[in-house]
Amino acid sequence: MFQGQTPVFPRIFGHEAGGIVESVGEGVTDLQPGDHVLPVFTGECGECHHCHSEESNMCDLLRINTDRGVMINDGQSRFSINGKPIYHFVGTSTFSEYTVVHVGCVAKINPAAPLDKVCILSCGISTGLGATLNVAKPKKGQSVAVFGLGAVGLAAVEGARIAGASRIIGVDLNPSRFTEAKKFGCTEFVNPKDYDKPVQQVIADMTGGGVDRSLECTGSIQAMISAFECVHDGWGVAVLVGVPNKDDEFKTHPMNLLNERTLKGTFFGNYKPRTDLPRVVEQYMNKELDLQLEKFITHSIPFSEINKAFDYMLKGDSLRCIIRMED
Amino acid sequence: MFQGQTPVFPRIFGHEAGGIVESVGEGVTDLQPGDHVLPVFTGECGECHHCHSEESNMCDLLRINTDRGVMINDGQSRFSINGKPIYHFVGTSTFSEYTVVHVGCVAKINPAAPLDKVCILSCGISTGLGATLNVAKPKKGQSVAVFGLGAVGLAAVEGARIAGASRIIGVDLNPSRFTEAKKFGCTEFVNPKDYDKPVQQVIADMTGGGVDRSLECTGSIQAMISAFECVHDGWGVAVLVGVPNKDDEFKTHPMNLLNERTLKGTFFGNYKPRTDLPRVVEQYMNKELDLQLEKFITHSIPFSEINKAFDYMLKGDSLRCIIRMED
Ligand SMILES: NC(=O)c1ccc[n+]([C@@H]2O[C@H](COP(=O)([O-])OP(=O)(O)OC[C@H]3O[C@@H](n4cnc5c(N)ncnc54)[C@H](O)[C@@H]3O)[C@@H](O)[C@H]2O)c1
Ligand SMILES: NC(=O)c1ccc[n+]([C@@H]2O[C@H](COP(=O)([O-])OP(=O)(O)OC[C@H]3O[C@@H](n4cnc5c(N)ncnc54)[C@H](O)[C@@H]3O)[C@@H](O)[C@H]2O)c1
Ligand SMILES: [Zn+2]
Ligand SMILES: [Zn+2]
Ligand SMILES: [Zn+2]
Ligand SMILES: [Zn+2]
Repeated sequence: MFQGQTPVFPRIFGHEAGGIVESVGEGVTDLQPGDHVLPVFTGECGECHHCHSEESNMCDLLRINTDRGVMINDGQSRFSINGKPIYHFVGTSTFSEYTVVHVGCVAKINPAAPLDKVCILSCGISTGLGATLNVAKPKKGQSVAVFGLGAVGLAAVEGARIAGASRIIGVDLNPSRFTEAKKFGCTEFVNPKDYDKPVQQVIADMTGGGVDRSLECTGSIQAMISAFECVHDGWGVAVLVGVPNKDDEFKTHPMNLLNERTLKGTFFGNYKPRTDLPRVVEQYMNKELDLQLEKFITHSIPFSEINKAFDYMLKGDSLRCIIRMED
Repeated sequence: MFQGQTPVFPRIFGHEAGGIVESVGEGVTDLQPGDHVLPVFTGECGECHHCHSEESNMCDLLRINTDRGVMINDGQSRFSINGKPIYHFVGTSTFSEYTVVHVGCVAKINPAAPLDKVCILSCGISTGLGATLNVAKPKKGQSVAVFGLGAVGLAAVEGARIAGASRIIGVDLNPSRFTEAKKFGCTEFVNPKDYDKPVQQVIADMTGGGVDRSLECTGSIQAMISAFECVHDGWGVAVLVGVPNKDDEFKTHPMNLLNERTLKGTFFGNYKPRTDLPRVVEQYMNKELDLQLEKFITHSIPFSEINKAFDYMLKGDSLRCIIRMED
């Protein structure tokens, strides 16, 4: 989700991970060595307007900043090589055996949780899942369209399945995504390229006027507009998740809004990282939520072979590849 | 709210009213002669998907249709002069001592309610009030901006006052609207013409990042965009009420949405006319809702002087002018 950032070099990348606290800085009382944690790219200071709001997770202090390569309190990096700084990445820098993270950017979780599974809750999967469960909130039996069937979109599909959606329509320009999507609960597929009419029209025709909920997980402005216009008038809710380009413009006829459609967007599925993630981990463990994290984990490799993980991703072979530090 | 309709002539206009049932057609069991009712331009058949949905009031069968000049069941008009039909207007045609209305377009209310006051609940006032109370739903102590201080906007202001908003910022291009708005609870006023920067920026600067809720009651596309962009990221909700022009385009940068703002629109304040209006009348009568209808009623004239009512309206002297049939 991090395109467009100003290059900062050298830098330690990586932002989805699970770990164990090795030591804490002065004044840190919420965590202690040995705690199991998930680092998160967007933090929760606990004290700003957003952290105090029930509705927002966009912490004023620790909100994602792709340009900053240093710790927020002293403007310094905690990594170096030969006396020269190596910069941080979105407050996490997890492609590393040890990292330094602001206490507001780590969620303390149940130490019994399998870190090699719940680590994937620290970005994309929670984003898609929460976009459906926390923001679109489909009711049992409703229809849901998901635009973009990458990991984020599949997590949105997973959320729709958990919510009990009756129809889950997957939309992607890449037909090879469809096989995978079926395993996550997609009941129907639409490839916009297969039609002469706009995909919002295709979906309206399939559903007697539009879906009840839609989620856009592509980053394409065209998909954002279609995802909005394909929801039913009177009650439809569309949720934007994909990160747009700088010059994109969302355009629609205002009557589409006046006809009682709702349009929203979300970061990190509206989860407050420190408040909410521990609960999601619990729900996964005690099966209160039928969240099948294993389906997202297609590969596992040792850290020494990290470049293979990029190859899998670029070829589109993987959803999530776990990188193991221990061997 | 009815610009853009195809001209139909001759026609009986008028759509805000209160009345007493004189007789009912075959098969009508919900009403009987003597019932006190409010006719409504958008009906509720009780049987379609929208009527069954908790969220929608956009009845498939009886939704507003500005072009239709006849009864829906037989395609005929019920008015005539010298054997030639006079057409109906938005299912109501209330500038008449007697009218014929589909049973789905009349709300039966408490006969003790003063018809010469609650009649104004049959369109614009309920629209603005409901837009705030049912759709924007400001919490006690939140800030609200209202764009457009006509009767609909003032009713939205009234809703914000009832909801306990701490700041109610009125926005209008016409400074003469400000005096009136104060009586309805506006605490601050902004005239976009007084600033070099966009009004959404002015409001963001006044409120530390944006208002909690905004309501657009102008019909101007520029105001719709400003009303959306002036709400706070993380939790802000903007509600469009004004009826746009055919060729208008709502445009915004998608990041404004991704930053967790919500955009919605509403017809008739999301009230289901038959289900909800009787309750609003009750709430007004027993003061459960501190709804000060009297403030909207600036004039009262006999039917014979109806053209005066248009003069008051055109000069901007009136909010609502009651037209009395009895003298
Ligand atoms: N809001 C957040 O907090 C957040 C967090 C993580 C990721 N993201 C964003 O979510 C989006 C999806 O992430 P991902 O990792 O799943 O990406 P991905 O590249 O794996 O998947 C995107 C999918 O969308 C499809 N697609 C592209 N254009 C399309 C169109 N016009 N119509 C239909 N399908 C189209 C692609 O074929 C692809 O399968 C990205 O934009 C990412 O930046 C947002
Ligand atoms: N959605 C519905 O169900 C519904 C129902 C009734 C009315 N309406 C619509 O609500 C709108 C308001 O109705 P009304 O009767 O109060 O109208 P009105 O003409 O009395 O008031 C509109 C006000 O908006 C102001 N205005 C115009 N452009 C503006 C701008 N760019 N910025 C700030 N203020 C601006 C005008 O000066 C005026 O005071 C109309 O568009 C009407 O069609 C909608
Ligand atoms: Zn914060
Ligand atoms: Zn991510
Ligand atoms: Zn209906
Ligand atoms: Zn009206």
